[in-house]
Amino acid sequence: MARLIQCVPNFSEGRDEKVVQQILDEIRGVKEVKLLDYSMDKDHNRSVVTFIGEPEAVIEAAFKATKKASEIIDMTKHTGEHPRMGATDVVPLIPISDVTMDECVELSKELGERIGKELNISVYLYEKSASSPHRENLADVRRGQYEGMAAKLKEDQWEPDFGPKELNEKAGVTAVGARMPLVAFNINLGTSDINIAKNIAKVVRARGGGFAYCKALGIEIKERNIVQVSMNMVDYTKTSLFRVFDTVEREAQRYGVNVIGSEIIGLVPMNALIDVTDYYLRLENFDTGQILEKRMME
Amino acid sequence: MARLIQCVPNFSEGRDEKVVQQILDEIRGVKEVKLLDYSMDKDHNRSVVTFIGEPEAVIEAAFKATKKASEIIDMTKHTGEHPRMGATDVVPLIPISDVTMDECVELSKELGERIGKELNISVYLYEKSASSPHRENLADVRRGQYEGMAAKLKEDQWEPDFGPKELNEKAGVTAVGARMPLVAFNINLGTSDINIAKNIAKVVRARGGGFAYCKALGIEIKERNIVQVSMNMVDYTKTSLFRVFDTVEREAQRYGVNVIGSEIIGLVPMNALIDVTDYYLRLENFDTGQILEKRMME
Repeated sequence: MARLIQCVPNFSEGRDEKVVQQILDEIRGVKEVKLLDYSMDKDHNRSVVTFIGEPEAVIEAAFKATKKASEIIDMTKHTGEHPRMGATDVVPLIPISDVTMDECVELSKELGERIGKELNISVYLYEKSASSPHRENLADVRRGQYEGMAAKLKEDQWEPDFGPKELNEKAGVTAVGARMPLVAFNINLGTSDINIAKNIAKVVRARGGGFAYCKALGIEIKERNIVQVSMNMVDYTKTSLFRVFDTVEREAQRYGVNVIGSEIIGLVPMNALIDVTDYYLRLENFDTGQILEKRMME
Repeated sequence: MARLIQCVPNFSEGRDEKVVQQILDEIRGVKEVKLLDYSMDKDHNRSVVTFIGEPEAVIEAAFKATKKASEIIDMTKHTGEHPRMGATDVVPLIPISDVTMDECVELSKELGERIGKELNISVYLYEKSASSPHRENLADVRRGQYEGMAAKLKEDQWEPDFGPKELNEKAGVTAVGARMPLVAFNINLGTSDINIAKNIAKVVRARGGGFAYCKALGIEIKERNIVQVSMNMVDYTKTSLFRVFDTVEREAQRYGVNVIGSEIIGLVPMNALIDVTDYYLRLENFDTGQILEKRMME
């Protein structure tokens, strides 16, 4: 099977296309890595880059991009609306195909160590890679932002996982960590009553006692005169799309409302979809190695 | 998108592993083609090979394998139970991903012409590539087998599409054609009553007035004390797996019988499965380009 991970680094430059292109060129230059997408936000002065590939190649590309960013972005001059602490602000590593979360955690540590040693940049491990529970949440790690990092790095509980305790002024601090892929999954309801969408969102989301790996909001889609349960599936391997779909449909029926459709926004791992087919057809002993496209990637 | 076709050539050698390996080596030697499987049958004295790849690379590999087979298999000495007419007996080309059937037909003609011209082997186009309706069915094309080909090639209505009208005695005749992928799809019923499986098979298959691209039989699975509707889906783009599944389930309910599971045997194109997810989740505007693994293959 093709081992595949995704990397979605955020860089603190969203205005100068030339700077961003130089970073992208580092990624494009690594064979066996595919650059899928990038977006620049001028107000945030930040760009988000998506690429995938074999684990080792992805780590190499992430390192090279981080190195380049540290050379051409100067955090002492950075302004923007989005919270940030480094030229390469955050590097999430995401298992997609035939790679375990544990392997991604190991890879994040290798990458973090390399960034710390070779680039002299302080690194915090976050999410699944966090060395302590208080470092799991990126917002906590980044609190104080770039301007507060010189002091934060010296606090006992914020000693960096890799790299110096002294702030690299030009490059700032980088968070590296493994996390599951997010699947943005929205279910449209045949009503304009926002309260129905809000009530259903409450019962399906973890915070309301619903599914452990589902975040949900009820929102209006005014141009269609309908409402939507808008969700982030934060671990589709544990909370499946089909189970949430069936539950939303059943809840909607209590109000006499139909599910009129659903949407998957952006990229999605194949397995999140194949799981639905497997469930619906009650497949016995199906192996994704039977999928021709998957075999082609071997 | 990655353009992908599958090729499943049949060669008239199923006993001598060395001969088959020499043919396989020709396929393995073509970059951007992946050899997925091969099987040898001693009684049939025939082997079936499966490979996939970019269209141009697949055609190249198919040509090289046919050339090698013509050099190392001698049809004047071939015996076996399976009907056959050539060293390379039949070369089906199957669109898998981002390739149309029309393109596969064109590719089959290119391949057939090359086999005719460069290898001096008579070629019949069959299935979707057939130059006339009476040549669509492989069994009709192959009728008379190798021993009857010298005479058949001279008949007005069996003039070869490419290559000589005189039999190439060593290599025989080759059929080349484009066809849809088959999906072997079985649905298991919670009863031991074979009549229920047979009755359902009758109503879902094309021959019984059911789905146009579905072949079905009712069979017993004795070791599990259940019965099965065993199907070949001959064009999943026109007769979807979910529609047949839902119909079998509804029919079974008439007998008070449940569907207890289903099976997909062997290889399956990703789209045949994604179609099920799309239907079940009522996806709006989903594009398979959103699937990460698919993007990796671009």
